[in-house]
Amino acid sequence: MRILSINEQTVPIQSEIANAYISFRNMTASVVAIVTDVVREGRPVVGYGFNSNGRYGVGGIMRERFIPRMMNASPESLLTDAGDNFDPHKIWDVLMAGEKPGGHGERSVAVGVLDMALWDIVGKIAEKPLYRLLADQYRDGQFDSTVFVYAAGGYYQPGKDTAGLQAEMQGYLDSGYTKVKMKIGGAPLSEDLRRIEAVLKIVKDGRCLAVDANGRFDLRDAMAYADALMPYNLFWYEEAGDPLDFALQSALADYYPHPLATGENLFSMQDARNLIRYGGLRPHKDFLQFDCALSYGLVEYLRVLDMLADHGWSPRRVIPHGGHLMSLHLAAGLGLGGNESYPGVFRPFGGFADKHAIEQGYVRLPDAPGIGFECNRDLYRLLASFGE
Amino acid sequence: MRILSINEQTVPIQSEIANAYISFRNMTASVVAIVTDVVREGRPVVGYGFNSNGRYGVGGIMRERFIPRMMNASPESLLTDAGDNFDPHKIWDVLMAGEKPGGHGERSVAVGVLDMALWDIVGKIAEKPLYRLLADQYRDGQFDSTVFVYAAGGYYQPGKDTAGLQAEMQGYLDSGYTKVKMKIGGAPLSEDLRRIEAVLKIVKDGRCLAVDANGRFDLRDAMAYADALMPYNLFWYEEAGDPLDFALQSALADYYPHPLATGENLFSMQDARNLIRYGGLRPHKDFLQFDCALSYGLVEYLRVLDMLADHGWSPRRVIPHGGHLMSLHLAAGLGLGGNESYPGVFRPFGGFADKHAIEQGYVRLPDAPGIGFECNRDLYRLLASFGE
Repeated sequence: MRILSINEQTVPIQSEIANAYISFRNMTASVVAIVTDVVREGRPVVGYGFNSNGRYGVGGIMRERFIPRMMNASPESLLTDAGDNFDPHKIWDVLMAGEKPGGHGERSVAVGVLDMALWDIVGKIAEKPLYRLLADQYRDGQFDSTVFVYAAGGYYQPGKDTAGLQAEMQGYLDSGYTKVKMKIGGAPLSEDLRRIEAVLKIVKDGRCLAVDANGRFDLRDAMAYADALMPYNLFWYEEAGDPLDFALQSALADYYPHPLATGENLFSMQDARNLIRYGGLRPHKDFLQFDCALSYGLVEYLRVLDMLADHGWSPRRVIPHGGHLMSLHLAAGLGLGGNESYPGVFRPFGGFADKHAIEQGYVRLPDAPGIGFECNRDLYRLLASFGE
Repeated sequence: MRILSINEQTVPIQSEIANAYISFRNMTASVVAIVTDVVREGRPVVGYGFNSNGRYGVGGIMRERFIPRMMNASPESLLTDAGDNFDPHKIWDVLMAGEKPGGHGERSVAVGVLDMALWDIVGKIAEKPLYRLLADQYRDGQFDSTVFVYAAGGYYQPGKDTAGLQAEMQGYLDSGYTKVKMKIGGAPLSEDLRRIEAVLKIVKDGRCLAVDANGRFDLRDAMAYADALMPYNLFWYEEAGDPLDFALQSALADYYPHPLATGENLFSMQDARNLIRYGGLRPHKDFLQFDCALSYGLVEYLRVLDMLADHGWSPRRVIPHGGHLMSLHLAAGLGLGGNESYPGVFRPFGGFADKHAIEQGYVRLPDAPGIGFECNRDLYRLLASFGE
């Protein structure tokens, strides 16, 4: 049982959208296909991985460091002790040999992309969907058969007016979502409030709308928005300040009575732990959005979930960033609180199984072995072009 | 006034040495040469930059994101308002456009390497050594004409016994250093203590020896070493635990009465600020080792120094990691406490101006315009091969 090849490519996922911090005009993502010598249903098992939006492709790092480390390792060192499957935990140690501690960015994406492909392989070899494999390994077989998802949109976009924003949100409700998210912080507060009120006319209830500042605010702006948002009693107020400014986050949590959310720009257990230690977040109320595809993969995510348990946080408070199928499996198999979804953007990487529509804010998992990218036609067409 | 080309290459700096965390067998570094259309002394001004050891070359990131951003910017947007020189602060904003907050690793190296080359250019165009330019811009012309440097060595190396370690340290003293550093944590405590005592026989005084665990220890080991090291009253005890484990650092600072040092694996102002906020370090006693070449360059370093001043820290407590000429200029021009030096390893990137020997633990700055890589023959031979 061995890896025959790892094919990697950087693909554009550019879009005219912008959040308060960056434009996505030149955004890229890394895609990998790991080809094994294992055969299932008459074909070699191939695992696929990619990184979610917001961080660029990391092809150089993968080609220079991580792919050679995996290919140069002795094949047995990549397998479970029983030798019956690949072992992503052991492979993680192989990948990270020679890497100093700290500095968790970019390489965390490279490892996250490879880890995704490896879990796809592990599920396919075990002939189980990943969520069932995770439930069996880590939760005594318990899994959620449907997962809460919310529609993340409401980007700033040239030519998009309030009516366009309302139409976008109405579209999410029409396609089965019950909760939506929109960007704030890319316009003056007064304009953002007009945008929020326009969306509230569509979704009716503040608890059905989250807002996301993408780390744009200093403490003063974060507090001004907190004051202005307070009466709406929103689903959550996301990433007000710099993701590493735990003092700002803590001051905000002291002041703002409704749910806060953050974590998509923290890429290691150590960074996540600092948020929990110093960010003042409230385990009964707030949401954590770590994204395995950007942060050393599921192997590291399990460490994050252990750390959270040590600090009294339920996995139900975790609703990952990224809108990909991988996190949907984590949510179902490890009992997370849900998953992000990008119905309109970052195609074809967003989206789940084609045949499962969103129903009352929940979605079913694909039953194919592994992650089930094969159940999303557009995505699989792209991925398969690297794997064959 | 414009940039004509940016040449970039990844070079091996492999070595058989190891610290407690990684081996340097496959270590690389990025080198850049930025060629301008400005002429000084009959030749085009070329700036050179590279990253210090411990983090790998980042050629992919530079080629895909940072070099195109600089080359695609309008030439005027890269210049001072007066148009008489390049402006590394403005260029920093150009480089970081499209980058989300958080995730400070790898890209911080790419920007650090380019920033080094830019300051080399700025000094050459201004016809001043960088340390004088910095002193003029930021310290009313005050600079240090010599800088404290210590010899960082004492790595674990195949076949190197205690006598070899003693000979290495004696060599540093013979060549003018007064303080030395050695690795710990790559061997059992009892063996490390034997190594330390052997070195103390050479340097005589504990205040002349620093030890560096490279982030290897958990709290229990960090405390066990603290107990064992306490009687030696060492120069400093460096990076006991994970660089982001500020709780460990703080517990250690509460317990260990002698100086601690850390910071080489924190790559942004935000990460440095968290160390200061949460790490429990003592502004009258401890040392900070942030390395501009790994952490978004001198532009970000100025933000770090401002942050330190806000928290009551003197720049004299800062002794950067990396052993390169760039940090030597920062030390002299911005009044830092000194600079690391690697007399034996990471050639040719370590080392200062050939004609200035270390004298009683201090070294003089090169007087050439810019950073003065031209004053180090071996280094300049390598750099010039990319610039011409």
